[in-house]
Amino acid sequence: MDSLSVPFSRRAQQLSGSAIREILKVTVRPEIISFAGGLPTPAGFPVAEIQQAFDKVFAEQGRVALQYGPTEGYTPLRQWVADELGKDGVAISADEVLIVNGSQQALDMLGKLFIDEGSKVLVESPSYLGALQAFSVYEPEYVAVPTDEHGLLPEMISGPQAAGARFIYALPNFQNPTGLTLSLERRQELVERCAAAGIPVVEDDPYGELRYAGKALPSLLKLGRDVGASVIRLGTFSKVLAPGLRLGYIVADRRVIDKLVQIKQAADLHTSTLTQMAVYETVSTGFLDQHLPTVRDIYQQQCQYMLDAMDEHFPSTAQWTRPEGGMFIWVTLPAHIDATELLQTAIEHHVAFVPGAPFFVEGSVQKNTLRLSFATVPEAKIREGIATLGKLLKAVN
Amino acid sequence: MDSLSVPFSRRAQQLSGSAIREILKVTVRPEIISFAGGLPTPAGFPVAEIQQAFDKVFAEQGRVALQYGPTEGYTPLRQWVADELGKDGVAISADEVLIVNGSQQALDMLGKLFIDEGSKVLVESPSYLGALQAFSVYEPEYVAVPTDEHGLLPEMISGPQAAGARFIYALPNFQNPTGLTLSLERRQELVERCAAAGIPVVEDDPYGELRYAGKALPSLLKLGRDVGASVIRLGTFSKVLAPGLRLGYIVADRRVIDKLVQIKQAADLHTSTLTQMAVYETVSTGFLDQHLPTVRDIYQQQCQYMLDAMDEHFPSTAQWTRPEGGMFIWVTLPAHIDATELLQTAIEHHVAFVPGAPFFVEGSVQKNTLRLSFATVPEAKIREGIATLGKLLKAVN
Repeated sequence: MDSLSVPFSRRAQQLSGSAIREILKVTVRPEIISFAGGLPTPAGFPVAEIQQAFDKVFAEQGRVALQYGPTEGYTPLRQWVADELGKDGVAISADEVLIVNGSQQALDMLGKLFIDEGSKVLVESPSYLGALQAFSVYEPEYVAVPTDEHGLLPEMISGPQAAGARFIYALPNFQNPTGLTLSLERRQELVERCAAAGIPVVEDDPYGELRYAGKALPSLLKLGRDVGASVIRLGTFSKVLAPGLRLGYIVADRRVIDKLVQIKQAADLHTSTLTQMAVYETVSTGFLDQHLPTVRDIYQQQCQYMLDAMDEHFPSTAQWTRPEGGMFIWVTLPAHIDATELLQTAIEHHVAFVPGAPFFVEGSVQKNTLRLSFATVPEAKIREGIATLGKLLKAVN
Repeated sequence: MDSLSVPFSRRAQQLSGSAIREILKVTVRPEIISFAGGLPTPAGFPVAEIQQAFDKVFAEQGRVALQYGPTEGYTPLRQWVADELGKDGVAISADEVLIVNGSQQALDMLGKLFIDEGSKVLVESPSYLGALQAFSVYEPEYVAVPTDEHGLLPEMISGPQAAGARFIYALPNFQNPTGLTLSLERRQELVERCAAAGIPVVEDDPYGELRYAGKALPSLLKLGRDVGASVIRLGTFSKVLAPGLRLGYIVADRRVIDKLVQIKQAADLHTSTLTQMAVYETVSTGFLDQHLPTVRDIYQQQCQYMLDAMDEHFPSTAQWTRPEGGMFIWVTLPAHIDATELLQTAIEHHVAFVPGAPFFVEGSVQKNTLRLSFATVPEAKIREGIATLGKLLKAVN
């Protein structure tokens, strides 16, 4: 059956498949050493604890867990999120929290909430590909905010290029794709300039709890409070528990939450009652305090394997980030090397990565960049794959 | 914190809360007998079987179930859906099935896929409120298709009013809100006229498996195949298993599915791997064959309680539907009675229902209508509540 004779909407026609997704299709072949994926390591999934939590919910509240629930989310889980932020010194009430199907849904909903065709949206250059895909559906005009090794450069926020922007989207901790952390000084400057310019900040922090080096820095939400900036914070259980659950949350002021609730109601009524209740059972015992050190240790070790191998095998003309947390290392090659072309050769040599180009918005693409993920690859394969990449890089140098 | 100084998008400004949602807030008061809800009865939730399925998935494939999965959905579950349709004589392959977070997400995604600002969309008059909310985000121009006791009247599809419509949205079985079933003759005429006019049919069938009277009729998907109509079919596990799981599916041709996959990827990456695997474990044993008769019996009994009470207590000036399945009865009052005003009085007398007005699109509102749900109210309360309503109706007659 293919008798469709009506056009797709303009926004649907513009949509294209994820470049990463197409690459990942190749990289499932067993002979490929893939640094392309953004998947957390299953070694960090607390299967037994999550199973126990589901069992408890079924045993004690099975029919409630299987019934429709409020669009806002399961109240005890919303309260737990509020309490966690309270520990960091941010006073939040449960009704400033909305539960969603992972951070990706939050990004889609924020696009729906704020973006009209042609609305300016500020994004770090480079930025998270999934966010660009989510926002692009609503046809914004992106403004690329340059970054250096301390994260985004806030100057532009006060300038004419940013005037009237609907929001700035920022990942302050171990950014995807760069692995960079926004410095305290820059955080402060960011929220101050945003407060002055009246530009809301969307703070996406999926990796914040995966810090394995350096000192934790205050969230943009916390810093924003002190200077009167409007900050919308996104969090997720994907990296601290497991991504297959599809559970995340949005923290924002009531006016924003109330409108997002209307948007979510129209989009999918609410997030799984059962999943919310089971995750609440898992985390409300304080389980993350004992679980997270294990997860951090795994990522720290994996990261170190890769950095050691890169130090040994990569040519001195390549530069790369040294993340304090998260799952990604960002590589900048000499300007004449196109990482998309390099990928073709690399795959012939059974190594994969993600070229940097799709992480940039139009007009700011740096083709000589690539992202490496160390999260799920065994040590020996990391060494082997990085050695291969190093050879290829030296050959094209 | 309420320092937001940017406007919401135009579409977000137009959104308003669900009228039903506001009413339901009042009706949670324990003294209220509520016929307003659209919740399935928890008595029909197979808690033990679903718990066992989750346990099995955790025990055998815990780490897979907790990891990211493909946007299209869990392949065995997609195949199961295809096989089920095969039993009804519709040959479908698994890659014509996309798993979503309940039918509501399917409605949102179809809006995103097909509706540009001002696109014509044909809807039954009245139609499912949740669909109108989902589509309205994308600013269509609705065309109301009149209905009588045999369902929608297909003539209009071939006329100038429908020309260029992006799709027609239809609920052929025990429609929400009317409880009406589209007759075989009308089904045939609908798909024939849609094929001729090149208008896709979105067939939403959440209640089809809850038929407790009359004979099952062929789906629009099946009939559409024979005449070359493009039919997109929506199904859900909310009514046959449990709504709190948030699991549904879309069946369509590959070109539509492929674009919907891109839309879903940007919207929330994918539906919970764990939930999909557990539901597959539940249904793949053939469990629904033994479970559904129990659920149908419950609804049939509940429906009969309400119809009996209405026959006894309602004035002869009121008319109502006699559903062959599902959860709803639709009442048409004398033209001078406004059901929204009646609701105020009814709530004072501790009875609630949903006025019909929000189920109609602009320009076709019939204020003298209301929806009654019998699904979750105990027999004695049904009799008591209907008796009260009957008295109020006689008083305003």
